[in-house]
Amino acid sequence: MHVASRNAPPASEGRGYLKNAWYVAAWADEVTGEDLVARTICELPVLLYRKGDGQAVAIGDLCPHRFAPLHRGRRRGDDVQCMYHGMVFGAGGACVLNPHHGGVISPAMKVPAYPLVERGPLLWIWTGDPACADAALIPDFGCYTARGFRTVRGVMDTAANYELITDNLLDLTHADFLHEGTLSSEAITISKLETMVEGSSVWANRWCPDGEVPPVWRQLLERMGMDPDQKVDHWLYMRWDAPGHLLLDVGLAPVGRPREEGYWVFTGHHLTPVDARRTLYRWSVVRNHAIDDPEVDAFWQASIDYAFAVQDKPMIEAQQAALGTRDIETLRPVAIPADVSGGRARQVLARLIAGEKKGHIARPGETPLDQLLARSAMSASPVLPVV
Amino acid sequence: MHVASRNAPPASEGRGYLKNAWYVAAWADEVTGEDLVARTICELPVLLYRKGDGQAVAIGDLCPHRFAPLHRGRRRGDDVQCMYHGMVFGAGGACVLNPHHGGVISPAMKVPAYPLVERGPLLWIWTGDPACADAALIPDFGCYTARGFRTVRGVMDTAANYELITDNLLDLTHADFLHEGTLSSEAITISKLETMVEGSSVWANRWCPDGEVPPVWRQLLERMGMDPDQKVDHWLYMRWDAPGHLLLDVGLAPVGRPREEGYWVFTGHHLTPVDARRTLYRWSVVRNHAIDDPEVDAFWQASIDYAFAVQDKPMIEAQQAALGTRDIETLRPVAIPADVSGGRARQVLARLIAGEKKGHIARPGETPLDQLLARSAMSASPVLPVV
Amino acid sequence: MHVASRNAPPASEGRGYLKNAWYVAAWADEVTGEDLVARTICELPVLLYRKGDGQAVAIGDLCPHRFAPLHRGRRRGDDVQCMYHGMVFGAGGACVLNPHHGGVISPAMKVPAYPLVERGPLLWIWTGDPACADAALIPDFGCYTARGFRTVRGVMDTAANYELITDNLLDLTHADFLHEGTLSSEAITISKLETMVEGSSVWANRWCPDGEVPPVWRQLLERMGMDPDQKVDHWLYMRWDAPGHLLLDVGLAPVGRPREEGYWVFTGHHLTPVDARRTLYRWSVVRNHAIDDPEVDAFWQASIDYAFAVQDKPMIEAQQAALGTRDIETLRPVAIPADVSGGRARQVLARLIAGEKKGHIARPGETPLDQLLARSAMSASPVLPVV
Repeated sequence: MHVASRNAPPASEGRGYLKNAWYVAAWADEVTGEDLVARTICELPVLLYRKGDGQAVAIGDLCPHRFAPLHRGRRRGDDVQCMYHGMVFGAGGACVLNPHHGGVISPAMKVPAYPLVERGPLLWIWTGDPACADAALIPDFGCYTARGFRTVRGVMDTAANYELITDNLLDLTHADFLHEGTLSSEAITISKLETMVEGSSVWANRWCPDGEVPPVWRQLLERMGMDPDQKVDHWLYMRWDAPGHLLLDVGLAPVGRPREEGYWVFTGHHLTPVDARRTLYRWSVVRNHAIDDPEVDAFWQASIDYAFAVQDKPMIEAQQAALGTRDIETLRPVAIPADVSGGRARQVLARLIAGEKKGHIARPGETPLDQLLARSAMSASPVLPVV
Repeated sequence: MHVASRNAPPASEGRGYLKNAWYVAAWADEVTGEDLVARTICELPVLLYRKGDGQAVAIGDLCPHRFAPLHRGRRRGDDVQCMYHGMVFGAGGACVLNPHHGGVISPAMKVPAYPLVERGPLLWIWTGDPACADAALIPDFGCYTARGFRTVRGVMDTAANYELITDNLLDLTHADFLHEGTLSSEAITISKLETMVEGSSVWANRWCPDGEVPPVWRQLLERMGMDPDQKVDHWLYMRWDAPGHLLLDVGLAPVGRPREEGYWVFTGHHLTPVDARRTLYRWSVVRNHAIDDPEVDAFWQASIDYAFAVQDKPMIEAQQAALGTRDIETLRPVAIPADVSGGRARQVLARLIAGEKKGHIARPGETPLDQLLARSAMSASPVLPVV
Repeated sequence: MHVASRNAPPASEGRGYLKNAWYVAAWADEVTGEDLVARTICELPVLLYRKGDGQAVAIGDLCPHRFAPLHRGRRRGDDVQCMYHGMVFGAGGACVLNPHHGGVISPAMKVPAYPLVERGPLLWIWTGDPACADAALIPDFGCYTARGFRTVRGVMDTAANYELITDNLLDLTHADFLHEGTLSSEAITISKLETMVEGSSVWANRWCPDGEVPPVWRQLLERMGMDPDQKVDHWLYMRWDAPGHLLLDVGLAPVGRPREEGYWVFTGHHLTPVDARRTLYRWSVVRNHAIDDPEVDAFWQASIDYAFAVQDKPMIEAQQAALGTRDIETLRPVAIPADVSGGRARQVLARLIAGEKKGHIARPGETPLDQLLARSAMSASPVLPVV
């Protein structure tokens, strides 16, 4: 990708990153006011800031003159001045002022400009060929902006490869052990897993009809004034989109009743590689109940903070420490059925990275979830997703 | 060694480790109750725990499924459950429960099981082919369990290759400089050094008859009510066994009298490589006098702590820092006569490691020390060792 | 260089160091009394100390026996004893006492002896072939010892390659941005830069006649009772000598008047590589005014400490962090005219390092600055330097 040539990262361990893809650069409110915000994304040094009209932009963070970081510079209106020798770069990446003798600006005086799309609470960045950046390829997280929903969220700096986190999320059976007594749910273990692949999307769906309310959900139902002793249909639909975006649609409803009569949430998971062994993991919980209740906000914030920071993160970081610089696949891990979804995601991603040399671009599946589920042998009465 | 293949360590610097050998995994009381104790031994991740009947066992610490560390798991009776996805492994290394659909257990679902022998205060681990593990090959440290002896001991985490510590112990002339005024002893410098090799054992013996009491021993004799001004026979017999176990038999007795009339101690030294540049060094002092006196315990504890932690450790770590990733032999060190014993140990170890490919197994020398000494030209009236 | 063979450093990143050259080992007062002072210079472990007669000497810091650092040893008169096994080395590097049996001293029992010259406040060390060490090749910093001058100085431990600091100093245009409001000076930007090369010296001279007093100088003039509103001639003459010594002669004087009627200082900059990514940067400010005024000492100390520690150092270390192990030249930086001087210095140094294999020795330019300036098209009325 010639756009990155002047800010070339160190040679990556393993198989590298999918370049022609949308990553999450930041939650939108990580970039505010006049701030110059530095982020390393797939080893690329990136500078994020907002123009005077509020538009967020992303350019390379290293001045092409002597590779001083622009985030140590200052704003000049919508431009950024390197504070080492004073070159000024516009939001399009080109040098717009060379304060030195003559002020000549050569074509090489530029930094990469990364396509950036603000959509709801997220800033999406395209690290590949700008000509291929198509906002229609951004995975659908419409739940973030749907009317009547409330989102809590966080960022977790994790010392592990992002695919180890993908594995974690695509195999929810880990909840019964790692999150025992909190997020664990008998339904996860007894339900059947159905993996579906379309384009650069993988679904790992579990559907558990006519069962007991799993323990963890009892207090949620009680809080909502619902009967925790009734029989329920319980669903967990996890969607993964390359390179590392996941949406879990999870909840339960009285047997045979639509989801609106039950309790459900969406959880979003956005994995942005810093490098081969470090990931910024942004997570969210989106709910449609008690949306004005700060106590419920706090409940979810504390629950997820605990589950991720105290339970998942140390385990995943321990995996990474054991692996060191080795890719897990090279160690021939023993497989269980629950690994199927994670394995498919790894295959899809490997194929996309390999295909990139031939100009292929990842494209999320477009079939709506209800149609996918209707095709499924697993679920006779699919619970329809909300978008 | 196929046993380690699924928990393969990173490629080792230098010439690697002797695999078919007994290392010290831990002092026996490092592993108590229901605890899951993680140790890295020759870069192998090892889990130590005790079964309900008290038997200590050692298995690989990484679950073969996704390489999560089992020491983050929990006990299930005599078994251990990985807390990431719930596989349970028995003390023999095999998976005994797969909680996932069908519960199928494939032959690959296992971790290495390391032969482990508890002998006195030590847990000995065999890192090589279990079929070759022979407890008879464990070097003799009978002094630890001999009646009428008292042991104080410690563990020192040292940022240096274990062979640099072997060098230190096999050349006690360093005491006159590094331990000046504490462990130093004129006899070490003026005595003759005799190096003897048998099997995988090397002896570095010093014998200094009919001399003054070295300064450091005067306070010990006085404490015992013995005359510090008498002439004494003084001995230092150091035995090394591959890969890194040393026993020093050191003391003095009235001229021509048996050791029982004098003052002596054994010191044990067990060097367990964590990796090429880090060693867990376990040491002990075994004495047969004042064995119920906590003040004497404290004296020895403080003396050795000071000598090792304040004097030896910084010097050896400084050596390692100067060497970096280089093996000391490649830098052509200048030799002095006192290096002979350490050099022989290095040769023996190198030969053992090279021989391992041909299936050779290290075997400690079996000739009793008194017979060895009787053959010696150095000592006309050998002081007999206690076992 | 056979002198360093026994204390061989790890393989250097990049193109290595100029060996046959004078580096600054320390400010003279870093080495006092009986102290054994360790410094790493171009990856060589060096021991500095003063003999009883006050003469400073430099020898290799690693004992050739087991590579224990001599700086952990002790003085024996003018000699140094390794405290691991007791070998004693003289100021000439040879072993003078082997305390072990027989006391035989072999020719290999020696450490490198580095030519060391104390000149004014500096200890200069020659890292190459001692036979080529010629004190006449030490760059001229006579200002340090000139009568009627006062020096303040410091040391800054910088996590960056020394050539990045050279770049910084040879392109003073950075002052307008990085030191805005303190060391910045309009004259730097509007003046013409003239680069001159002679031998292993590069000059980067700026001459700005008949202009306003730059803001930063106003308070200095006022402090001296001079009129800050008069028109002045302003000069900045920066001299670089391989491998990393710089002298800035900077000041201003009433138009057409000699420098003695104006205000000027010399600043010295001595860059000693620790390794490819760490530099000890010793700096000085030499002035001929208010030389007995501790307030002026404090003013300069605080000004330079702030400029270097708070402004330059973070920027240069950020450059190094962005570069990682890569040489900046391999990333094809975009050039501006102000880079010419730094580029010439890099070329001269690269040529000197390459030439060293053919036995060439760096030799500073010998033409006095006034003669150089007289040849210059830039300055019609050169301001003469003081030596």
